[in-house]
Amino acid sequence: MDIKIHLKEKDIPRKWYNLAADLPTPLLPPLGPDGKPIGPEMLAPVFPMNLIEQEVSTKRWIDIPEEVLDILYRWRPAPLRRAVYLEKFLKTPARIYYKDESTSPPGSHKPNTAVPQAWYNKQFGIKRLITETGAGQWGSALAFACQIIGLECKVFMVRISFDQKPFRKLMMQVWGANCVASPSNETNAGRKILAEMPNTPGSLGIAISEAIEQTVTDPAGKTRYALGSVLNHVMLHQTIIGLEAKKQLKLAGEKNVDIVIGCAGGGSNFAGLSFPFVTDKINGANIKIMPIEPTSCPTMTRGPFSYDFGDTACTTPLLAMYTLGHSFIPAPIHAGGLRYHGMAPLVCQAIVEGLLEPKAYPQTKCYQAALTWAKTEGFICAPETSHAIAATIDEAIKAREEGKEKVILFSYSGHGLMDLSGYDAFMSGKLTDYELPEEDLKKFTAPLKSFPKAEAKKTGKW
Amino acid sequence: MDIKIHLKEKDIPRKWYNLAADLPTPLLPPLGPDGKPIGPEMLAPVFPMNLIEQEVSTKRWIDIPEEVLDILYRWRPAPLRRAVYLEKFLKTPARIYYKDESTSPPGSHKPNTAVPQAWYNKQFGIKRLITETGAGQWGSALAFACQIIGLECKVFMVRISFDQKPFRKLMMQVWGANCVASPSNETNAGRKILAEMPNTPGSLGIAISEAIEQTVTDPAGKTRYALGSVLNHVMLHQTIIGLEAKKQLKLAGEKNVDIVIGCAGGGSNFAGLSFPFVTDKINGANIKIMPIEPTSCPTMTRGPFSYDFGDTACTTPLLAMYTLGHSFIPAPIHAGGLRYHGMAPLVCQAIVEGLLEPKAYPQTKCYQAALTWAKTEGFICAPETSHAIAATIDEAIKAREEGKEKVILFSYSGHGLMDLSGYDAFMSGKLTDYELPEEDLKKFTAPLKSFPKAEAKKTGKW
Repeated sequence: MDIKIHLKEKDIPRKWYNLAADLPTPLLPPLGPDGKPIGPEMLAPVFPMNLIEQEVSTKRWIDIPEEVLDILYRWRPAPLRRAVYLEKFLKTPARIYYKDESTSPPGSHKPNTAVPQAWYNKQFGIKRLITETGAGQWGSALAFACQIIGLECKVFMVRISFDQKPFRKLMMQVWGANCVASPSNETNAGRKILAEMPNTPGSLGIAISEAIEQTVTDPAGKTRYALGSVLNHVMLHQTIIGLEAKKQLKLAGEKNVDIVIGCAGGGSNFAGLSFPFVTDKINGANIKIMPIEPTSCPTMTRGPFSYDFGDTACTTPLLAMYTLGHSFIPAPIHAGGLRYHGMAPLVCQAIVEGLLEPKAYPQTKCYQAALTWAKTEGFICAPETSHAIAATIDEAIKAREEGKEKVILFSYSGHGLMDLSGYDAFMSGKLTDYELPEEDLKKFTAPLKSFPKAEAKKTGKW
Repeated sequence: MDIKIHLKEKDIPRKWYNLAADLPTPLLPPLGPDGKPIGPEMLAPVFPMNLIEQEVSTKRWIDIPEEVLDILYRWRPAPLRRAVYLEKFLKTPARIYYKDESTSPPGSHKPNTAVPQAWYNKQFGIKRLITETGAGQWGSALAFACQIIGLECKVFMVRISFDQKPFRKLMMQVWGANCVASPSNETNAGRKILAEMPNTPGSLGIAISEAIEQTVTDPAGKTRYALGSVLNHVMLHQTIIGLEAKKQLKLAGEKNVDIVIGCAGGGSNFAGLSFPFVTDKINGANIKIMPIEPTSCPTMTRGPFSYDFGDTACTTPLLAMYTLGHSFIPAPIHAGGLRYHGMAPLVCQAIVEGLLEPKAYPQTKCYQAALTWAKTEGFICAPETSHAIAATIDEAIKAREEGKEKVILFSYSGHGLMDLSGYDAFMSGKLTDYELPEEDLKKFTAPLKSFPKAEAKKTGKW
């Protein structure tokens, strides 16, 4: 069997999978400022109606438009790869597969949703998309998609990444986008935070506030906002990852998967790979499904399950999710894409249902795993991806200790070629681990009304 | 037919192709300081004997060791891709294919030879490899290969690239290599040049001198030098590119290729793709085969065919090649990999034989082509690769004007994710074209005894 398992274009999945159709308990609805569930029309200033329909849909399968597939073919179907060199190094009986999302033009899984989002906006008559970006993966993915589809693109980039990754900004410019550091002076939200904390490294929450503010204040009404994670329609678009992986595992002769692993910041990469397996688990399959987060931003492992805002300035609807509080600003770890206070409601609901086993890793352990990866498999992974690799290595070692031939699948969410400053810091011994102090956790989550998971699961109500 | 044409591992070429076996006139031999042909033993302080055997071999096919293939499988067989989006944009009847060498861990074709070179050195009992690098592609490829195979690695990186591309240096460090800027204070050659020109951007010629000096002065004799281009064994290893491409074109249903294009600095990427097609041309096929170089370093289009040193400090044997003179330092264009005064003797001999049609392009035209590529195909190419794309676009437009369904194949030698400062300079209008002034050409080539090509072709002698 080849190391790289390729699907033909004709075998690409033609429908996205919607986990909302199969969750044992329905998703808790987003709430408006009045605490009442919001209707789809309330999202209309921010998103086009065709995407809002996907956002609230509980249909199990949703067609992928042919024109979207035509664009995705530039890099999809993406390869499934067997990590034979890592297996050998670890002397593990486990068979380790990874879905390689680093082969897209921007180098991550992000364009899987950037392309359909840009396409649906274009269909709806929109002229410009605005977004935020953490590590820069999402911003460059949206820039790429807008360039191909023919939309203007504006990106608010979290200050710390803007400074650490000048090349990401240039990448967006190559694809014709306008990229500014957040907090910026262009919005009320940005100006307010700069006045309070002029040296803030920024955060996804702040950048989201800026992007939404600039979107809804377009007098022509031809601007919409695009979000790279968290929302249901984003998870939906990413399921192409796991749907392809299932077909490829079959080609590789695997009947079962024992462990599925993905790093999770807002949840889209993890959801994309895992949701098609979560449905198997709902139907009785014995699979351990693990979203991995940083210890410095332990949303799923330590945050309460609660209603909270998606952004810092409290402009989004309230979402039912694990959260560290919307005013929490994570430590400046190098995995910028994992620095988010909340988590996709679909992922959170699956945790409530007991379908997932989240785990947190400190960044030095992840960089150690990344170096092991570079030494064995040869490739240089993104700092976010290193979290999945660290967990994979732990599971592969456990399989060795147990003497079990487990099948492990993880998502190789992106390459790290533009994130080498983190490697530099690690190799020169300058990297610190951040454990979120208990008092900070209490402080930031105190205003939240967290609610008993068991109750929420039983009633599906707040 | 899919856009991406994949070969199975079992169909990977198992032998390299040696053009030296088929050239109508034998290669002119390298000469020693006394002007007489050197024997293989004179190269022994610099290269291991098993590679020297390949260097002087005229055997047509040379086996690729299984252990080398085992390493290459990390990214090989590399995809052949059809540039359907560019074709559509250009409204050309031409079918454009490109061999995607950007999928290797270091992001270019360079590891195709770095891996066998490191492997043969290891077999020969060598402990450490030293090399130079221009754009950083070769240095990182050798670092990668040495890491996988278990050798120490030292890289002298041309100063201008060292400064422009800090991430390339970090990449080498991730793979355990030691990378220093050249000219450096570590060698006599470096110190001499720094004394004369403290602000020199450096050049491949200087860096080669430093690497060779440090190699031959290892008292333990366990160090060898590795060259990323120019030499016959390097061209040999790269032919896996063209051999794979031939099989893939067949899978795509193509019976003939009309035009083969590759950028050429030292010649290895171009040779790798084209040599298996050059042999078809020798046997009567009607193929236009084009090595593309920058106008600022017009070795093949304006340099005399002559014996010259491969490096600035005159430490290498004299090679019969097109050259701008070993003391020529090319302008600081962003395509660092194309800044070399000479050219692979095998490529040069093929030009003398009338088998190739070299062409020079200015860098702004190449960056324009790179932006067109990013807008259509979506990927960001290396500045070197943009030269091949610029020529491909010209040929595709010509095919449109002539109304001919030509098949064009070019080598996508690497991605440009770590070369974005050049894009920045171009997009902000700061990029200049350099045309080599005639008086400079005369000055640098005056000491060379160039010799009539017709005579050389007839007699095979100096």
